[in-house]
Amino acid sequence: MNSTPKITLVGAGPGDTDLISLKGLKALRQANVILYDALVNEELLDYASPDALRVFVGKRAGQHSYDQEEINELLVMYAQSHGQVVRLKGGDPFVFGRGGEEVAHAAAHGIAVAVVPGISSSIGVAGLQGIPVTHRGVSESFWVITGSTSTGTLSQDVRQAARTKATVVVLMGLAKLAEIASVFRDEGKAHLPVAVIQNGSLPDERIVLGTIGTIVDQVQREGIGAPAVIVIGEVVAQHQQFETAGLNALAV
Amino acid sequence: MNSTPKITLVGAGPGDTDLISLKGLKALRQANVILYDALVNEELLDYASPDALRVFVGKRAGQHSYDQEEINELLVMYAQSHGQVVRLKGGDPFVFGRGGEEVAHAAAHGIAVAVVPGISSSIGVAGLQGIPVTHRGVSESFWVITGSTSTGTLSQDVRQAARTKATVVVLMGLAKLAEIASVFRDEGKAHLPVAVIQNGSLPDERIVLGTIGTIVDQVQREGIGAPAVIVIGEVVAQHQQFETAGLNALAV
Repeated sequence: MNSTPKITLVGAGPGDTDLISLKGLKALRQANVILYDALVNEELLDYASPDALRVFVGKRAGQHSYDQEEINELLVMYAQSHGQVVRLKGGDPFVFGRGGEEVAHAAAHGIAVAVVPGISSSIGVAGLQGIPVTHRGVSESFWVITGSTSTGTLSQDVRQAARTKATVVVLMGLAKLAEIASVFRDEGKAHLPVAVIQNGSLPDERIVLGTIGTIVDQVQREGIGAPAVIVIGEVVAQHQQFETAGLNALAV
Repeated sequence: MNSTPKITLVGAGPGDTDLISLKGLKALRQANVILYDALVNEELLDYASPDALRVFVGKRAGQHSYDQEEINELLVMYAQSHGQVVRLKGGDPFVFGRGGEEVAHAAAHGIAVAVVPGISSSIGVAGLQGIPVTHRGVSESFWVITGSTSTGTLSQDVRQAARTKATVVVLMGLAKLAEIASVFRDEGKAHLPVAVIQNGSLPDERIVLGTIGTIVDQVQREGIGAPAVIVIGEVVAQHQQFETAGLNALAV
């Protein structure tokens, strides 16, 4: 057991265990302690040593849920007591994963930190569905925004994004879908294509394809729930089922 | 050998061979033909079967370079003649990788296509340097823009992005760094932190930390070359060497 204190933030990817990187896998195998979130596929823990301590720090009904400060402290505490700690996070550690706070806290305690990036759902979940976040002649950029800000209100960035040609990807935004659609409607974009993808990369993945004007009703009717990725932009029309879906949506 | 025609777009990640996903690796192992770019680490080809055909389709001095239409046609031709084809691309296939065009062309020829997302340099290269593209209280979003548009001019999205609080990441933009900096200066952002990272994730990786006002001179003085990732935003100040670097830059 390597007892030198070290914290490695590892991005687990969108959900499919095969979407973790080789480097992330190696870090998991060497870990003495693994702290993991609700969005992480627990099958990944099978790669860890049988002796490794597995600590769930996500939110679940009926269990104590850890706030970010507690997680920061646990990371430092376990690094000091057990050496190699892996902080396993869904997607990429720095895409709305609060990884930056964990790095800063560890550094303030003089503990070495390494980062293993992951496949972010913002790009990968759309890609697995054949939706390119950029596409020549259609989109020269993509803008990834959190739907869940620290204040609980919709990020002002969404309003600005609605005025641009960027592909807009909103993570953790399903609860605010109606508000987001309203912002885009205000910009005259009722016909802009939208995809909402639940449980991307997993066997129970579901997708709804529509437009700003139709998507709220469609998501409600289909009973789409979190976690979901919202992709807004002309690139969504590249999805091979888009045309049919769009016609169906309009016919409703 | 599986001779059913199929094209799998695989994202190889930023350069470090360990940043490919397990799923990407499995696709490589099963490929009968691999078409790869200049930005792909060729050591990844060692994972392929010894019998697999390796076809370089990138740009190199003194060699014929393939245009996108030729690549599209090669993909279909090899899928028809050899079955399983992997199209191995740097980063993620859909982040300025023209993967969308390859998918569309294959689909038009009735060939099955699969996509294996990769770790995009836009997120991962910054992350490996300890720069979080999002950070609570600092940035609620990040906007990824190509520096190399189809017309050769700077994307208008850069000007719009300079007016927002989003972290701005420009890929393939080193040749336009002065123009990009000028756009941000016009918005009164001369003191905004900037990082330019060359060969991210590779042993010869180099980083320059500065501000909009200093970065052009710094990059020139340090002789930073392509490929490079440009990260613009307050999050860059999270880099552990930023303070010192910033002071040095200001002292010049």
